[in-house]
Amino acid sequence: MLTDTERLARASLSRIVEPGDTDVGVLLEQHGPQETLARMLSGPAGEGYRARARGTDPAADLGHAHALGARLVCPGEPEWPTQLDDLGTARPVGLWVRGTASLRLLALRSVAVVGARACTAYGNQVAAGLAAELADAAWVVVSGGAYGIDAAAHRGALAATGVTIGVLACGVDQYYPSGHSALLGRIAEQGLLISELPLGAHPTRSRFLQRNRVIAALTRGTVVVEAARRSGALSTARRARDLNRLVMGVPGPVTSELSTGVHALLRAGGSLVTDAAEVVELIGAIGTDLAAEPAGPMLPRDAVVGEARRVLEAVPPGGTGAPVERLVRRAGLPSDIVLQRLYELGSLGLVERHGGNWRQR
Amino acid sequence: MLTDTERLARASLSRIVEPGDTDVGVLLEQHGPQETLARMLSGPAGEGYRARARGTDPAADLGHAHALGARLVCPGEPEWPTQLDDLGTARPVGLWVRGTASLRLLALRSVAVVGARACTAYGNQVAAGLAAELADAAWVVVSGGAYGIDAAAHRGALAATGVTIGVLACGVDQYYPSGHSALLGRIAEQGLLISELPLGAHPTRSRFLQRNRVIAALTRGTVVVEAARRSGALSTARRARDLNRLVMGVPGPVTSELSTGVHALLRAGGSLVTDAAEVVELIGAIGTDLAAEPAGPMLPRDAVVGEARRVLEAVPPGGTGAPVERLVRRAGLPSDIVLQRLYELGSLGLVERHGGNWRQR
Repeated sequence: MLTDTERLARASLSRIVEPGDTDVGVLLEQHGPQETLARMLSGPAGEGYRARARGTDPAADLGHAHALGARLVCPGEPEWPTQLDDLGTARPVGLWVRGTASLRLLALRSVAVVGARACTAYGNQVAAGLAAELADAAWVVVSGGAYGIDAAAHRGALAATGVTIGVLACGVDQYYPSGHSALLGRIAEQGLLISELPLGAHPTRSRFLQRNRVIAALTRGTVVVEAARRSGALSTARRARDLNRLVMGVPGPVTSELSTGVHALLRAGGSLVTDAAEVVELIGAIGTDLAAEPAGPMLPRDAVVGEARRVLEAVPPGGTGAPVERLVRRAGLPSDIVLQRLYELGSLGLVERHGGNWRQR
Repeated sequence: MLTDTERLARASLSRIVEPGDTDVGVLLEQHGPQETLARMLSGPAGEGYRARARGTDPAADLGHAHALGARLVCPGEPEWPTQLDDLGTARPVGLWVRGTASLRLLALRSVAVVGARACTAYGNQVAAGLAAELADAAWVVVSGGAYGIDAAAHRGALAATGVTIGVLACGVDQYYPSGHSALLGRIAEQGLLISELPLGAHPTRSRFLQRNRVIAALTRGTVVVEAARRSGALSTARRARDLNRLVMGVPGPVTSELSTGVHALLRAGGSLVTDAAEVVELIGAIGTDLAAEPAGPMLPRDAVVGEARRVLEAVPPGGTGAPVERLVRRAGLPSDIVLQRLYELGSLGLVERHGGNWRQR
């Protein structure tokens, strides 16, 4: 288990270090968080770090996060998604997580849907439909919370009563872009907002690009829906490819500028997908290293306790299952909690989604 | 060289045998056309053949063809496109060719563009644009003369002052569909109409399907522009794949029924292409077995005689070249003849198209 001192050190590092700093990653691998922090601040190249460290108060940061319903999830902790370890020395020092579900369990069955900010009506329709179908199949849709395809993907998942994760390039208390405050708030309630940046942090160009590596590493694969030739969504796809995740693209009219990036991706070896069934066929087939679709439950039913146990007992054993609203009544828990626990139980192989309903496996 | 008797026997066979009859193909390989004809008509299974043979007059057929500006091109003749030999025992007994250009030379640098009859405005636009760009790069566009994508491809090539080949499932004197009489007439003038069926023959479902194997075998690759899941264009693509030709598809909106067949093709290993440059990159790279893009001319300049020589002498030696109209004036020949000779000289590596102009290589 992580000690309080280690957590405080990682909270400090998340304020001092820019995402993707591999020099710090090397130190962390060799010396752990406290020693890394000490060396950074005292070292010859430490002036920049010391300037950023002034006035930081990691205990206060953790307190503010707690008040917001957020927490810092660190490598080695049970909630840490171990697939992020594939990032090596570029692994985040920690992730600020807002929402009540388990990041690790949700991320086990997750897929990224990303694309152009300035998307077309076609892209919007395709991304929302794809995300809704993925949610219907109990997959967690991960995206970046941006305008355009990202928003369509989050909205599609939410509309299908699915769970979605927004990976931000700013603090999880920041609603960026501001036009998405309602959407991001709803993601935090029905899913999770996560970021390696501390509360209050603002996005920068570099942070957007580094954020993409987290989206790529967290998920089994990345689907690009619309992207011009130099779109940021393609950087997520490249990261996914480099991490041996699946790279998928939805084609579009060759007469549209927003198809060019996707088609270039497909010509370079990405997999062409036209609907969620084709996505699931690909991402369901891999992932024994992450979490295979379990033939049976991954842990005994008796090991499930607390809220998750109440939800599990509310789910019908097979048959056509029951809709979320009925499970909410039976379990006597808020609907967002029930939904998150259902997705967690799903990733453990204990329940499954069947159309709009849930049933035990 | 083919004897007159052999030509007459093949003309008879083209009237008696349905396209793709491999039993007859086996006999032809073993015994040649005269002996094959004799065995077919006298054999135990000959009743059907004899019924069809009654009243046939191969000499009259050849005469009528000549009057129409058509001829029968047979295996082993200089004008025979030897890539059709890849069809083995399903090789046509001969091809009726209408138009003055050399089928063999035009087919050396040819690519098929096929697709749905009931295409969308998108497909129409894409097929016409692709064919025009291919013509601009001095590639011969081959298609089936049908409504929809086929017509758009032929029209695009013609509009770009290119040469195009229509492969018909009926006699080359038949304008089928009748709404295409003007288009097919223009193809015969500016390019070639070809068919393995004799004059007067009407299309049938089986003839359409067998026609597709000729399109596939004649060309270096087949591009499918729009196709529903059970489209005939996909049968051309399958034939092309079986013949180790390139199979290409232009993607479209996943929300369109007419994209489903193309996307299925691409998911099964077809190459995604979005413009003519990408098509040329693929088909230009292969084809050493058919006819490689020659580094230098394939035959000495002095060997070019007759009309071709007059056209060659009219073409500027390099520079930005000259448009067809100027070459027509210089050569003193009809424009369709000049165009066909230019394409032939192009396939021999003696001239090349540069934008809308032609120049010597």
